[in-house]
Amino acid sequence: MTVDTSFGSDNHAGIHPRILEAITEANSGPAIAYGADAHTAAAVAKFREHFGKNADVYFVFNGTGANIIALTTLARPFNAVICSEYAHINADECGAPENFCGCKLKTIHAPDGKITIDDISRQLQGRLDQHRVQPSVVSITQASELGTVYSAAEVREIAAFCHGHGLFLHMDGARICNAAASLGTGLGDVSSRLGVDILSFGGTKNGLLLGEAVVCFNPELSKNTIFIRKQAMQLASKMRFIAAQFTALLSDDLWLQNAAHANRMAQMLAEKIKSIPGLEIIQPVQSNAVFASLPRPAIDKLLKKYFFYIWDEEKNEVRWMTSFSTTEEEIDRFAAAIRESCK
Amino acid sequence: MTVDTSFGSDNHAGIHPRILEAITEANSGPAIAYGADAHTAAAVAKFREHFGKNADVYFVFNGTGANIIALTTLARPFNAVICSEYAHINADECGAPENFCGCKLKTIHAPDGKITIDDISRQLQGRLDQHRVQPSVVSITQASELGTVYSAAEVREIAAFCHGHGLFLHMDGARICNAAASLGTGLGDVSSRLGVDILSFGGTKNGLLLGEAVVCFNPELSKNTIFIRKQAMQLASKMRFIAAQFTALLSDDLWLQNAAHANRMAQMLAEKIKSIPGLEIIQPVQSNAVFASLPRPAIDKLLKKYFFYIWDEEKNEVRWMTSFSTTEEEIDRFAAAIRESCK
Amino acid sequence: MTVDTSFGSDNHAGIHPRILEAITEANSGPAIAYGADAHTAAAVAKFREHFGKNADVYFVFNGTGANIIALTTLARPFNAVICSEYAHINADECGAPENFCGCKLKTIHAPDGKITIDDISRQLQGRLDQHRVQPSVVSITQASELGTVYSAAEVREIAAFCHGHGLFLHMDGARICNAAASLGTGLGDVSSRLGVDILSFGGTKNGLLLGEAVVCFNPELSKNTIFIRKQAMQLASKMRFIAAQFTALLSDDLWLQNAAHANRMAQMLAEKIKSIPGLEIIQPVQSNAVFASLPRPAIDKLLKKYFFYIWDEEKNEVRWMTSFSTTEEEIDRFAAAIRESCK
Amino acid sequence: MTVDTSFGSDNHAGIHPRILEAITEANSGPAIAYGADAHTAAAVAKFREHFGKNADVYFVFNGTGANIIALTTLARPFNAVICSEYAHINADECGAPENFCGCKLKTIHAPDGKITIDDISRQLQGRLDQHRVQPSVVSITQASELGTVYSAAEVREIAAFCHGHGLFLHMDGARICNAAASLGTGLGDVSSRLGVDILSFGGTKNGLLLGEAVVCFNPELSKNTIFIRKQAMQLASKMRFIAAQFTALLSDDLWLQNAAHANRMAQMLAEKIKSIPGLEIIQPVQSNAVFASLPRPAIDKLLKKYFFYIWDEEKNEVRWMTSFSTTEEEIDRFAAAIRESCK
Repeated sequence: MTVDTSFGSDNHAGIHPRILEAITEANSGPAIAYGADAHTAAAVAKFREHFGKNADVYFVFNGTGANIIALTTLARPFNAVICSEYAHINADECGAPENFCGCKLKTIHAPDGKITIDDISRQLQGRLDQHRVQPSVVSITQASELGTVYSAAEVREIAAFCHGHGLFLHMDGARICNAAASLGTGLGDVSSRLGVDILSFGGTKNGLLLGEAVVCFNPELSKNTIFIRKQAMQLASKMRFIAAQFTALLSDDLWLQNAAHANRMAQMLAEKIKSIPGLEIIQPVQSNAVFASLPRPAIDKLLKKYFFYIWDEEKNEVRWMTSFSTTEEEIDRFAAAIRESCK
Repeated sequence: MTVDTSFGSDNHAGIHPRILEAITEANSGPAIAYGADAHTAAAVAKFREHFGKNADVYFVFNGTGANIIALTTLARPFNAVICSEYAHINADECGAPENFCGCKLKTIHAPDGKITIDDISRQLQGRLDQHRVQPSVVSITQASELGTVYSAAEVREIAAFCHGHGLFLHMDGARICNAAASLGTGLGDVSSRLGVDILSFGGTKNGLLLGEAVVCFNPELSKNTIFIRKQAMQLASKMRFIAAQFTALLSDDLWLQNAAHANRMAQMLAEKIKSIPGLEIIQPVQSNAVFASLPRPAIDKLLKKYFFYIWDEEKNEVRWMTSFSTTEEEIDRFAAAIRESCK
Repeated sequence: MTVDTSFGSDNHAGIHPRILEAITEANSGPAIAYGADAHTAAAVAKFREHFGKNADVYFVFNGTGANIIALTTLARPFNAVICSEYAHINADECGAPENFCGCKLKTIHAPDGKITIDDISRQLQGRLDQHRVQPSVVSITQASELGTVYSAAEVREIAAFCHGHGLFLHMDGARICNAAASLGTGLGDVSSRLGVDILSFGGTKNGLLLGEAVVCFNPELSKNTIFIRKQAMQLASKMRFIAAQFTALLSDDLWLQNAAHANRMAQMLAEKIKSIPGLEIIQPVQSNAVFASLPRPAIDKLLKKYFFYIWDEEKNEVRWMTSFSTTEEEIDRFAAAIRESCK
Repeated sequence: MTVDTSFGSDNHAGIHPRILEAITEANSGPAIAYGADAHTAAAVAKFREHFGKNADVYFVFNGTGANIIALTTLARPFNAVICSEYAHINADECGAPENFCGCKLKTIHAPDGKITIDDISRQLQGRLDQHRVQPSVVSITQASELGTVYSAAEVREIAAFCHGHGLFLHMDGARICNAAASLGTGLGDVSSRLGVDILSFGGTKNGLLLGEAVVCFNPELSKNTIFIRKQAMQLASKMRFIAAQFTALLSDDLWLQNAAHANRMAQMLAEKIKSIPGLEIIQPVQSNAVFASLPRPAIDKLLKKYFFYIWDEEKNEVRWMTSFSTTEEEIDRFAAAIRESCK
């Protein structure tokens, strides 16, 4: 299926030109495989600029790989991971956490995609009971799967709660750049400096060909992560080509420009459609997603020309994602089409 | 560590220009993620040109992922996979088969990297014994990890034996292009048409940025492979960029040019050094590897200027790999350096 | 901790005298290990008397083992098992299904411990979506963890729904004897004859020293179960001593006497306490459990003399279990103590 | 199949009368399940008498369960376990270590069933190499699967080597009582006091109905073993009946009487047959096994009246096991039958 304009996902976008350029530049002469090359060293150094010098960085292929490696670093099979029911690890990874890490997910009903310390607290019953899995990790998604963003205070509070209760905090940062752009802060300000223990840093949705990184902020915790990555089938031989993309993304604020642009496009779309009768925006638009409900015939009409996902068939809820490559013209046209379809 | 010339591995090479061009061309406008795009459809069609219309194709990130997905398609945890002790799945994947597929590897001592039906036969004791793992798959590597190549007759014989004994045949084709180039036949002629059931098709070592494919020749067997791929963390969102590389590789004989060149470079190296006193070429040079033994001081001297791996420390055996990007000049200079080091 | 009278669980009871006698009788001379003995053959034959001649029987150590072997027989890691949130497999097995079978549990909020086809139906979204686990098994517990019992019609309806939707039906029958006694029918009448595909048959809670059985009603499905049992660490060497217990249990209606007695004790307890002010019986008493809510001080007073579990700390709900060895005198005394504590 | 006399395995024997008596005595009144009972506490205390007060004891059902729980306590999936190719964990557990623990076994060719520090040393190549599994445990079997016994000095040396190389030492003690009886020392003298870190203590083969124990000598290592046991499906509800058997076994030297008797029967058999022409005893008879080679027709003749296993079909090697219940008369008759068959 080919599409002219997609609001289906930020991973429907292509490669940002500066990222592709970085790949091309890295393609000169041979390089030692599996990460023992200068490009990888440079990319790791770049991560440490953003996240602090303790950042222990592992480049991987995709978000599922990053999440599973992060969780396996901090959980054994008899442990449990506490997360939102909407968490990508729970809803969209075909059981990879259960199968690879071996552990159970304890899920929280989180209507806005964000979990609270009260939610977490309720999942802690049964600790030390040999019949029950033992929670060791809390996983939050920033920005969340519903487009919402945890405030710095919220993350700090969750981290403190976790550390006070013998739990680690994992952040699924598939869209961490969008979250940081939304909050107007740096990347470390939304993660390492708030007490996050391990981060899945997302590149693919923000302009990379492909590439994610597991970033652990306490190297003592990640001393086996290098083996976990290999066993998780996530070790790239020509790693320089993943690394070089990250160096470009993390240089000259490209991460921010891309994410801020995507966020702005979502804001623009929301602004343009919020007053359409029959349409309701059902989540705060804090990153690059607009969740809306509208009449089913309107949805069907739109789907003839635009690609996007129905989020909840029963409630006629849809998800519209924007990306670094979404243009104002596309938003204009799409907003008009939505308005037209709702008539 | 940076290197000017590497004989360490064919994955030390970069991206072939036509592959990079294909990526660049695929980078126009949005595309549906996860394989529902035109580039992926085109690449699948291209595979079917080579392997027949039944070929069921799954693009993945790396060779470990391809192997594990192929094995998990054909083995459950109580099964065993029979392979050479040198098999990449046994020696170089940090236990991924055991952990993800859950099954045991039953390994065969194979001094030249190739296994025989007698070897396999001896691993079949204990079938139906509830205390023993039950072999379900034989895995052969073509070209082998020792640079040798199974003849068509050898593969056909192994396939027939497997099918006569309730076993499936997997081919780890990380270097299948080198094998086909060596045998002077097409890709299907060394795999699907000989009775191989499932193939890990290697792209990365033959000029791709990254990308491998699981190709199953009996779609009935692979009806769950789509879920196994996702659970194995090997589903790319921007799949068009893997697919487009394969379309380029499999068009206009690029796969063959690259592989044949690499093979020729290995032949050339072997020719130039075989008469050096104190040096012995210890495996037939049938693909793009030269295995040799030479005095330890000579090895140490060479390692100061060239990157390669010592294969067996005790026996002073080394492995020299060539790639699509190795030049005749590099071979000349390296052969001279070897000769010099052995003086 | 020692207890005089326990309402904590039916597994607090000891061994029924006729079971112990059967063990003693089986202890004469040597016997081939791992099930190739006459006692095992006799026990299998006895199961077939109850469940039909197709019953494929695997003796195991405990209920967790039986459940996991049953599920692994019918689910691969990318599959999901649909069950009640209270299901023993979900709540009380320390993540064994996720770790051993590899699959995810999709849980249903079931206030009375029983799930319906509407519940199941809602868990089937996302079939064929490669990002989602694929349900292959529905697991129901009979009698349920809340002491309720599915009617024959309910099980038949669930089985028909499952088979119409490509799902298998597993019954966790840790207390199947109590359910059959409650319904006044035979063991096959509550399982094999209603469309159940595979059953965990419980012996331990109904008078055995230890012993459960996986019973599959379609031998085609269980052709690998013998290997799964061994790999699941559930193969007993001196199997005759498990088998002999089952032969005794399934002979001369011992299974029924034990279960009916336990059920009657629960009924008797409920009768005696139902009118106590401040106490509420919160689940229908259909097997050998009484779930009640009563004031916290009353609970605390009782716990000084009797062992039982608080089911829900927040709601002051308790669970009282009876067994084959509970006596009317114990019920009398306990009922009086409850009444006293509620004053 | 029924047998009058079996030399097939020590687990063909029944229950020792004093063990059965202990079960019967434990069957009085209710007891808290899952190990929180007085019988379990008493059995743990008894283990500590033998193994020292730090012994952390977990009762389980069978030897496979004990081994897998011990290994999972000390190895993560990216680790490897070094053992003899004949090790029960490698040869007879249907891949349970690979599937449950997730790790690879690195096996050693050990013609007499015993491994040496040279053997172990050769398995340590590739440490810190991310492509290779990382050995964390060495597992030795005492007495070995070939009936041989490690001397105290040998175990001490292996333990010291392990601890000097960042490895733990596991002892599969399915027949530890036979080993201790053979060496004329106590149980701790062959394990805890020699540097063994974790022990699978075997009861079933030495007179129990069923029951094994995982005994860890450093409680810091086993702090998660309670959860691993449950997740490994090895937690007995009516644990008192396993515990009571162990208390009996470890009291009044019953363990020693049983094991010494079995050993003596094997010695007696070996003495009586060693001079038979055409028969060769092929392993030192140090515990309760006699390994012999004899002409195939003689083997076939014997198999008509006696049950035992052919160990190596190609070499006409057989294994004859004795047990606590083997009688001198049985040995006399069997030795005569062997002599007759070899004529």
